[in-house]
Amino acid sequence: MRKLGIGLIGTGFMGKSHAMAWKAAASFSGDIQPVLVSVADIDSDAAQRAQQQFGFQRWTNRWQDLIDDPEIDVISITSPNRFHAEQSLAAIAAGKHVHCEKPLAPDSATAERMYRAADRAGVITQVGFNYVKNPLLKMAKKMIADGDLGEIIGFRGIHAEDFLASPTVPWSWRLDPSGGAGAVADLGSHILGMARFLLGPIEELVADLETVIKTRPESPGATTSKAVEVDDIARLTVKFARGCSGHIEANWVAAGHKMQLGFEITGSKGSLIFNQERFNELQYFRFSEDESKNGFVTLVAGPEHYPYGLFCPAPGHQLGFNDLKTIEMLEFIQAIAKGNTAGPDFKEAFEIQKVVDAAVASSRERSWIKI
Amino acid sequence: MRKLGIGLIGTGFMGKSHAMAWKAAASFSGDIQPVLVSVADIDSDAAQRAQQQFGFQRWTNRWQDLIDDPEIDVISITSPNRFHAEQSLAAIAAGKHVHCEKPLAPDSATAERMYRAADRAGVITQVGFNYVKNPLLKMAKKMIADGDLGEIIGFRGIHAEDFLASPTVPWSWRLDPSGGAGAVADLGSHILGMARFLLGPIEELVADLETVIKTRPESPGATTSKAVEVDDIARLTVKFARGCSGHIEANWVAAGHKMQLGFEITGSKGSLIFNQERFNELQYFRFSEDESKNGFVTLVAGPEHYPYGLFCPAPGHQLGFNDLKTIEMLEFIQAIAKGNTAGPDFKEAFEIQKVVDAAVASSRERSWIKI
Amino acid sequence: MRKLGIGLIGTGFMGKSHAMAWKAAASFSGDIQPVLVSVADIDSDAAQRAQQQFGFQRWTNRWQDLIDDPEIDVISITSPNRFHAEQSLAAIAAGKHVHCEKPLAPDSATAERMYRAADRAGVITQVGFNYVKNPLLKMAKKMIADGDLGEIIGFRGIHAEDFLASPTVPWSWRLDPSGGAGAVADLGSHILGMARFLLGPIEELVADLETVIKTRPESPGATTSKAVEVDDIARLTVKFARGCSGHIEANWVAAGHKMQLGFEITGSKGSLIFNQERFNELQYFRFSEDESKNGFVTLVAGPEHYPYGLFCPAPGHQLGFNDLKTIEMLEFIQAIAKGNTAGPDFKEAFEIQKVVDAAVASSRERSWIKI
Amino acid sequence: MRKLGIGLIGTGFMGKSHAMAWKAAASFSGDIQPVLVSVADIDSDAAQRAQQQFGFQRWTNRWQDLIDDPEIDVISITSPNRFHAEQSLAAIAAGKHVHCEKPLAPDSATAERMYRAADRAGVITQVGFNYVKNPLLKMAKKMIADGDLGEIIGFRGIHAEDFLASPTVPWSWRLDPSGGAGAVADLGSHILGMARFLLGPIEELVADLETVIKTRPESPGATTSKAVEVDDIARLTVKFARGCSGHIEANWVAAGHKMQLGFEITGSKGSLIFNQERFNELQYFRFSEDESKNGFVTLVAGPEHYPYGLFCPAPGHQLGFNDLKTIEMLEFIQAIAKGNTAGPDFKEAFEIQKVVDAAVASSRERSWIKI
Repeated sequence: MRKLGIGLIGTGFMGKSHAMAWKAAASFSGDIQPVLVSVADIDSDAAQRAQQQFGFQRWTNRWQDLIDDPEIDVISITSPNRFHAEQSLAAIAAGKHVHCEKPLAPDSATAERMYRAADRAGVITQVGFNYVKNPLLKMAKKMIADGDLGEIIGFRGIHAEDFLASPTVPWSWRLDPSGGAGAVADLGSHILGMARFLLGPIEELVADLETVIKTRPESPGATTSKAVEVDDIARLTVKFARGCSGHIEANWVAAGHKMQLGFEITGSKGSLIFNQERFNELQYFRFSEDESKNGFVTLVAGPEHYPYGLFCPAPGHQLGFNDLKTIEMLEFIQAIAKGNTAGPDFKEAFEIQKVVDAAVASSRERSWIKI
Repeated sequence: MRKLGIGLIGTGFMGKSHAMAWKAAASFSGDIQPVLVSVADIDSDAAQRAQQQFGFQRWTNRWQDLIDDPEIDVISITSPNRFHAEQSLAAIAAGKHVHCEKPLAPDSATAERMYRAADRAGVITQVGFNYVKNPLLKMAKKMIADGDLGEIIGFRGIHAEDFLASPTVPWSWRLDPSGGAGAVADLGSHILGMARFLLGPIEELVADLETVIKTRPESPGATTSKAVEVDDIARLTVKFARGCSGHIEANWVAAGHKMQLGFEITGSKGSLIFNQERFNELQYFRFSEDESKNGFVTLVAGPEHYPYGLFCPAPGHQLGFNDLKTIEMLEFIQAIAKGNTAGPDFKEAFEIQKVVDAAVASSRERSWIKI
Repeated sequence: MRKLGIGLIGTGFMGKSHAMAWKAAASFSGDIQPVLVSVADIDSDAAQRAQQQFGFQRWTNRWQDLIDDPEIDVISITSPNRFHAEQSLAAIAAGKHVHCEKPLAPDSATAERMYRAADRAGVITQVGFNYVKNPLLKMAKKMIADGDLGEIIGFRGIHAEDFLASPTVPWSWRLDPSGGAGAVADLGSHILGMARFLLGPIEELVADLETVIKTRPESPGATTSKAVEVDDIARLTVKFARGCSGHIEANWVAAGHKMQLGFEITGSKGSLIFNQERFNELQYFRFSEDESKNGFVTLVAGPEHYPYGLFCPAPGHQLGFNDLKTIEMLEFIQAIAKGNTAGPDFKEAFEIQKVVDAAVASSRERSWIKI
Repeated sequence: MRKLGIGLIGTGFMGKSHAMAWKAAASFSGDIQPVLVSVADIDSDAAQRAQQQFGFQRWTNRWQDLIDDPEIDVISITSPNRFHAEQSLAAIAAGKHVHCEKPLAPDSATAERMYRAADRAGVITQVGFNYVKNPLLKMAKKMIADGDLGEIIGFRGIHAEDFLASPTVPWSWRLDPSGGAGAVADLGSHILGMARFLLGPIEELVADLETVIKTRPESPGATTSKAVEVDDIARLTVKFARGCSGHIEANWVAAGHKMQLGFEITGSKGSLIFNQERFNELQYFRFSEDESKNGFVTLVAGPEHYPYGLFCPAPGHQLGFNDLKTIEMLEFIQAIAKGNTAGPDFKEAFEIQKVVDAAVASSRERSWIKI
């Protein structure tokens, strides 16, 4: 059995999720066993709590300690977006494999630097586009490749949530322009990544980005406010290299939606509809001879949709969000074992970031942009 | 009791629907009673069959006979799109009120000529945007006006069907460019009209129109094919005069969809989701204090949603498509009685057509267009 | 063309619905044209208003006038339940065809007398079980007969509404025990009729009937109350003659439900799920070889489901409640023309009533009852 | 930190699920940390594989070794049903806490012996009714207790799956009458437990149990068949001690259903609908003053529904089946720490078993049975 030392940076939403996922992945990773070596958080108390909660061997308030730790093979980065580049590059320089949350970088130039550094260093990278790890999306991709939908003729995708819908939600790192764009980067990267996962490269777009809530309290409960410079809603009309077009929306002020990450893909012979709000289901239509019995089929995730069966041998029992994260970490471990990316890696994140950058530019220039 | 003589042009899908709607509306129109005077169809057999089926007093294969008929007060036009202008203008010139199916005209210049003619003649007009006659959409409009959603910040609309999805569907009048654009005019006008009905004028857009199926059989079963020049899919990013933006799609090659005419409207305090596939339902979300019980409410049409109660005093029994058409005709009769448009009238159809024209121009020029 | 004189008794919910349906059916009934001869209501104003609204030739406040009217061929009965027997028998005695709303009679002995009288008189009868006229239910019946579901092994049906959920709803004729049982007769007869329509006779049952709200105001707003003697909720476990069993619930105090009339039928090879709340849809499952693509198909009503196409040539446009009523009247007209019942006729209503009676008896005796 | 030694019996579906759940629960159990000491399976290879997969310290093919192991504090039982009693009693006798999968025993007499033994020994017990651990069901229970639904007047519950729908599925331990009844015990115990969790004791019932598939292959692919003696479908009409009644179905031949475990609870002021197929949602209706905006609200699980927030701080991300199992184990650990049952314990399983036994007796005697 080979041990894989894990160093985790950050202990928030994604920090906890990574810790749980590394632990859970150990049940499926066979000969390579992840070991929780150390956790770093600038807040010492948070670091110490996470160490105890998840059983890390040690903690630190300096992320650089993880980079210097010889027992650590993998750096798992869940810090605020603006630190992703520095931390990733340091980890790569130290020859460590890197799993970094999305968005990888504030812009594609930085993302490019990062993926090239990783390439040169020969380390394996992965970026936290966890939603494409869904067994039903693996099947969707296969169905498209197999021609079940015929020739693809259209895409409509969205990632909308409402966690910033209230103007009383204060300014935070997600709104910091030094971390990159707003909703189009934070949520848009998920649906753009999903679109690329299923249909391949996007080569041209026209986009419209809006800041709906122009100012927010500087901090929770503050009476002073701070201008918001990043987008709350982004609307993109895109052309895929394969020939079809589509529309994509990113929106974090979408009242009522907690996880409206979804798409409809139309082909000449059929179509697929997916919504992360019910991510154990996939709607599938295919024209059949008997029109009286035509209609969308609701496919329900089960063991016939790999790797659902790792978690449960019975269909319909449902995976949860953390299970997607577990699949993500499992595939990263397997990629490290094989020396091959499991994707989405830094290169893919760079490609997604180019689309995000193009959206920002298109909106500013109010014109179509080639990517 | 005052009689209102009806002359119907066309006996296809919409012709039959008009005939049934005029008859049904009579049960609700009180002192003004529509009378089915005459029906015209270029195909004499069809005209005669329609006369017998619906109880018209006479039939003709010349639509001009209706114009000349002194017993006819209203011309109901359901002929192929390219005849709408000529027939409407003739009816207006004869001082008759005109109900015309959409799209009203191949372009906005023609539509403008038509609405100005009607204005000058002092006749009442209406255009067949039947879906906005839905009692739940009347409530949606009122909810928006009442501020139930707060300030409106986004719109996403679609009208997608699949009746032209198969490349074996032959060329037909819907694809004839002399009748105007393709999906964006035929289906798009419905969702554009709905967007305007709910949120008011659109003042700018960028659009992308595509012809997915480039050629079709010249006629049913033909081995010779004919090039398709109009759009199968249209994607519009629009800005409303009220300040919010949105996305709109029109698509008649959308595998699996028979009537995906719907929208999601997002406001600062709540949102609405509608889909014509289940048009007796409206999804309504509004932020409330108790987050644990927050969620979308499924409103079901009932007598508290006027004019549902005309048809049924019990909720949940459901209106059908033809009932929407009946409401449309009823409101037209009432408009004639009061001398006021019930809308959408020729002027409104002209405004919608301007958006369609702008979409065509924007797609050709690949740029944002002011309307 | 043959004229069929219609006399309508009652002008409430069902009275209006019948009037509209007879008018609408005329568009599809070809050579036999229903003519609205006269309408009767004990309230003269109501009768007169209905005459004007729907275009009856005359009105009366004595239903007996319709029986005596030589121009009337068909009596359409929509009066309170306790009058159904007397009026039907009088109509039959006068040699008229009878359409009567359900429940036909307060008990099966009366219903038997009625159907035997009709048989002897050779008149055609029909009872207002309108929901089985749904094109999708016709298909469901055919699918079952064709073996699409394999051998039927189970049924679960319900008709639940909430119009009597509030204890402030006053006592009314629906609660009058002289009109028969409560929810099990009023709503239960619909789902029992649907069960029989699809699966055939029920031969044994055990039932539990409850009166949830024990007293109600004597009249709207009254401070005096009156005891309720009929059931609010009925739960039946039934055995069908074909060998399978099932459960049926009738409930008119079901908070939140306006029209939860539905079923799930399970067979050895597949199953069907239906709910009147979305009656243009039918869920169909059938085991297939590829388990990864198995699931319920949502069938949407369209012209391939006869007689949807009479109303609309395009799928997905949706029929409404009144359209079901129109189909009902159309089939009754056609039955009169052919001299054959279209069903459900008085005989069928008698069979349904026997099940209702058995449910009442089983609940009282707390035991299984053979029918 | 206190360590809690875990010994697991069985390595199938539930065995794996327990192992993952114990590991995951460690992240939330604070000062008491479960330790995977040993795993037993009669199949040595399976035991060894499980030891490696989940990181147990040792394995054995004799479950008695776990009972004798002084480092083991808790026995987690996932063996075939017929072994539950013997293994539980041995563990209790050794002073160990016991978590046992359901059904606890083949009959209520045995279950009673088991819970009394645990009581005398002062050990904490729990039975694997994992579905009631759902955060939304905890809220449902609280809503009912708080009177959000008013007085409860009706229940309709079901647990239907289709894993035994095909007659080619061979005979197995689930069909062994020495392990107890069929669907009513295996699936029915879940919905009966859920009914009791939400509404309290059931005191009377009438039931009908059926064996739909009378014989099955003796083993996979066998040509010889074996008679099935247990029920495939059970239908119960029940009376709750609180005064309301309801219907419950258990069914493991329900074509198309993988996890139709759900209920509708009706109260005088509102109602709740739940379905395990979408267990991160709960439908809630409550009568409100404005009837035009009345309807079922779809509540979506989020951090405001404890303990969802342990897994994820953002709403709508969804828990999976294994997360429910983790909550179950976490609550068991906490119960051990406090010396109080977290429920459902052996006593509760005994109460559920009494209902199952009554259903079997009622069906045999074809009469109402008091419990």
